[in-house]
Amino acid sequence: MITAHPERTRIQLANVLTALGNPLRLRIVRVLADGSERRCGSVLPEVAKSNLTHHWRVLRDAGVIWQRPSGRELLLSLRREDLDARFPGLLDSLLEAARRDEAAN
Amino acid sequence: MITAHPERTRIQLANVLTALGNPLRLRIVRVLADGSERRCGSVLPEVAKSNLTHHWRVLRDAGVIWQRPSGRELLLSLRREDLDARFPGLLDSLLEAARRDEAAN
Repeated sequence: MITAHPERTRIQLANVLTALGNPLRLRIVRVLADGSERRCGSVLPEVAKSNLTHHWRVLRDAGVIWQRPSGRELLLSLRREDLDARFPGLLDSLLEAARRDEAAN
Repeated sequence: MITAHPERTRIQLANVLTALGNPLRLRIVRVLADGSERRCGSVLPEVAKSNLTHHWRVLRDAGVIWQRPSGRELLLSLRREDLDARFPGLLDSLLEAARRDEAAN
């Protein structure tokens, strides 16, 4: 079973790839790749908040992002350190592939 | 819509990642990563053929493998050249991540 915020050692490759196998979630990860922690409403401001709730959960459960409550909002950041430790080089390859994919479409 | 054997330029990252977001399909790709063309029954001989039919289709439709009829069988191979051209370095990163993931589990 996938649970919220899996520990680093419990991050499964298949879950990470499933989480990233979606154009919107790839865009989210590209935005967070600058290392910032962002309010959920500021990641993809052009997408309705209600459309994103599901995607935050998928990314969080797979171990791709942290979600941290701050007042009435959630702050989001990429789990780069954990992903890089678990699968060295993979995240950078995925980000580069996402950049190319978006440029080609 | 995803169609069978997409042309190289139509291979979409999100589809590739969705296709690989499954432990069995990751194992299939690891077996085919040696560059061989294999009868479908010889890729994961320990898994029942009926359980694999769906997975061949997902991998084929996403542009990850070629399926080629040969007599009454299908021959399968990895579309490494296309994937490497489309997303340089990604496949090798994924294979390395899959190797680590399997070793850790």
